[in-house]
Amino acid sequence: MVQGKISRLSVRDLRFPTSLGGHGSDHTDPDYSAAYVILETDAEDGLKGYGITFTLGKGTEVVVCAVDALAHHVLNKDLGDIVGDFRGFYRQLTSDGQLRLVLRKVLCIWLQQPFSMLCGTMGQAGGKEEQMLMHGYPAYTTSCAWLEYSDDMLKQLCTQAPKGGWTRFKVKVGADLQDDILRCRLIRNMIGPEKTLMMDANQRWDVPEAVEWVSKLAEFKPLWIEEPTSPDDILGHATISKALVPLGIGVAIGEMCHNRVMFKQLLQAEALQFLQSDSCRLGSVNESLSVLLMAKKFEIPVCPHAGGVGLCELVQHLILFDFISISASLTNRMCEYVDHLLEHFKYPVIIKNASYVAPKLSGEAGYYTEMKEESVKKHQYPDGKVWKKLLTAQRN
Amino acid sequence: MVQGKISRLSVRDLRFPTSLGGHGSDHTDPDYSAAYVILETDAEDGLKGYGITFTLGKGTEVVVCAVDALAHHVLNKDLGDIVGDFRGFYRQLTSDGQLRLVLRKVLCIWLQQPFSMLCGTMGQAGGKEEQMLMHGYPAYTTSCAWLEYSDDMLKQLCTQAPKGGWTRFKVKVGADLQDDILRCRLIRNMIGPEKTLMMDANQRWDVPEAVEWVSKLAEFKPLWIEEPTSPDDILGHATISKALVPLGIGVAIGEMCHNRVMFKQLLQAEALQFLQSDSCRLGSVNESLSVLLMAKKFEIPVCPHAGGVGLCELVQHLILFDFISISASLTNRMCEYVDHLLEHFKYPVIIKNASYVAPKLSGEAGYYTEMKEESVKKHQYPDGKVWKKLLTAQRN
Repeated sequence: MVQGKISRLSVRDLRFPTSLGGHGSDHTDPDYSAAYVILETDAEDGLKGYGITFTLGKGTEVVVCAVDALAHHVLNKDLGDIVGDFRGFYRQLTSDGQLRLVLRKVLCIWLQQPFSMLCGTMGQAGGKEEQMLMHGYPAYTTSCAWLEYSDDMLKQLCTQAPKGGWTRFKVKVGADLQDDILRCRLIRNMIGPEKTLMMDANQRWDVPEAVEWVSKLAEFKPLWIEEPTSPDDILGHATISKALVPLGIGVAIGEMCHNRVMFKQLLQAEALQFLQSDSCRLGSVNESLSVLLMAKKFEIPVCPHAGGVGLCELVQHLILFDFISISASLTNRMCEYVDHLLEHFKYPVIIKNASYVAPKLSGEAGYYTEMKEESVKKHQYPDGKVWKKLLTAQRN
Repeated sequence: MVQGKISRLSVRDLRFPTSLGGHGSDHTDPDYSAAYVILETDAEDGLKGYGITFTLGKGTEVVVCAVDALAHHVLNKDLGDIVGDFRGFYRQLTSDGQLRLVLRKVLCIWLQQPFSMLCGTMGQAGGKEEQMLMHGYPAYTTSCAWLEYSDDMLKQLCTQAPKGGWTRFKVKVGADLQDDILRCRLIRNMIGPEKTLMMDANQRWDVPEAVEWVSKLAEFKPLWIEEPTSPDDILGHATISKALVPLGIGVAIGEMCHNRVMFKQLLQAEALQFLQSDSCRLGSVNESLSVLLMAKKFEIPVCPHAGGVGLCELVQHLILFDFISISASLTNRMCEYVDHLLEHFKYPVIIKNASYVAPKLSGEAGYYTEMKEESVKKHQYPDGKVWKKLLTAQRN
């Protein structure tokens, strides 16, 4: 049993100047960023917890402020009490009488708990754990087709990718139909008819526009269209699903979905064929698990959103748990993977043969996201070395 | 035409220690609070704008931080440019490329614009404007039945209220069924069978529980049950509506609804019979107007949420606009009114005969919420006089 108390909470505003490179072109000039939380304990072994939430630059200071507003629910808490009543702890964090009006996005803060502890709870893992340890969990890559990449860059990426074993590719669409047709044709030709292609519109369309636009891309056989319209438009997604499923195209949505109740709507309304939960947008492991269980009930595959900063490191534990203890299936299931910014993590995910390698049961890294001290120091906003330099250059 | 530029934005964390009195018992120990924004301009007449968003104490500092994060979209903007392209200005505030991932609640910041300007845009006001100026807009009171008020206090309030012309009353329910039955019986007996009674559950139930509980209160003839379950559970509210409408009870919801897309879901799913938009939760007048127009299309009456801090002062303009230029009906329409904290406003709403008195067309106060300087000074958190005293007392 864990022993000790949470003795200190510190939070950092970390920003990576990705807007300089054209990566992550789904948002306007994003600087991939994170509010990074470190929990210290007075445990004898010096146990620490590392949490993160993904942001896009400006506004990270608001999330930092929100973490500070929640700190009193965490500080001085006994670790045994937390583990003994996860639900009570989670409710306290998400239902603070005064804060609940303000905070509808609760940060994902968790203590280091190895994956083995999670999957122990449900048993029934027979053979599945071994399968994951041997082969890993299938991944797909979004690194190869941002809107702003040139054709030459696309060609180069599409040629390299299969060498790494990649068989599933996602392309960003929705800015210009003719350009989409050209890029999708290029990519489909490069990867061949057997490989899987997905499309991501990042909420660019209204409902009829989505149906019309995607119908014109149907010849490139996308498995799904992701975020065709406003993420809150549950019934709009149901309409889009109804129109596109007969064309063999599913709707994928969920990265902006803030709680289990919204996912319940999407599932009940038959608004999605692929569920893309986000481990930072959902408040904690508790909320994520309830979404995995609902998806199982509705027989909808979970293909989590990842990438950003630290999302891959968190989500790998959830998908392994999903396979071993809930879904028991890999059909139509895969987890997003983006190879940016991994170098800043002490225990980055490991990808082999286009699959997430299962973290070792005896390893150090559980559901947490410890970053390298040097990276943290350099990328603190606005006082880290990287930003001092950039901000000075901007001024001159 | 307005002339000048926005030259300064300042924001204050104002808190009122309402948790000491048992008012507002729908939230645990709330201190009714607000992030209060003052926009200064360089216009010759010294034009200023005053905006507010309502909070419950802790966490107000997070909203203050969010205002600061948006400030660069407002500072140095030309007033003529804003008025000339309200839509563009609104989009800029709500769709900042980096901030949109973080800010899903955008503050209601608006410059002083008299009510006359709004209603001029749609014409067709024939007679309705005069009707509003003469009789005002019907209000209902929530001041008389918080859960924690004693029976004697309830009796006293119910006796006083009809003297002020009140004919519509709202009671908080959902903590204990037997207690609800006793209080509802007491109130219904006091007000008689003709007066209107509404019930508010503040999200306490799940879906089947809501149907069962409210069915047991049906004998007291409530017009509506407000927030029976999670505000995101659109299809759950549709189920509750289907069960309760045959009993003559409608579902009222909307105060937690953060944008027009969510309201579209509620309307399309037939999840509500009364729409309770909140002028601070919705980002700006633009968002509020689109909700009023959708409600008209679906023929659902709008009965806005008010009370809190400054909500009545804002919403009075929206309901007058709704009546004069959109709905043209008062059937089943009324606006919430709570008489707390009005003394802190320079131009508080005026209630006569249980109706909101229309602000004078030639008056100074438009869609804005200027507070008295003395009130602002005293209630700043944590350095105002009121809080210094309370915090010192707590320490001792």
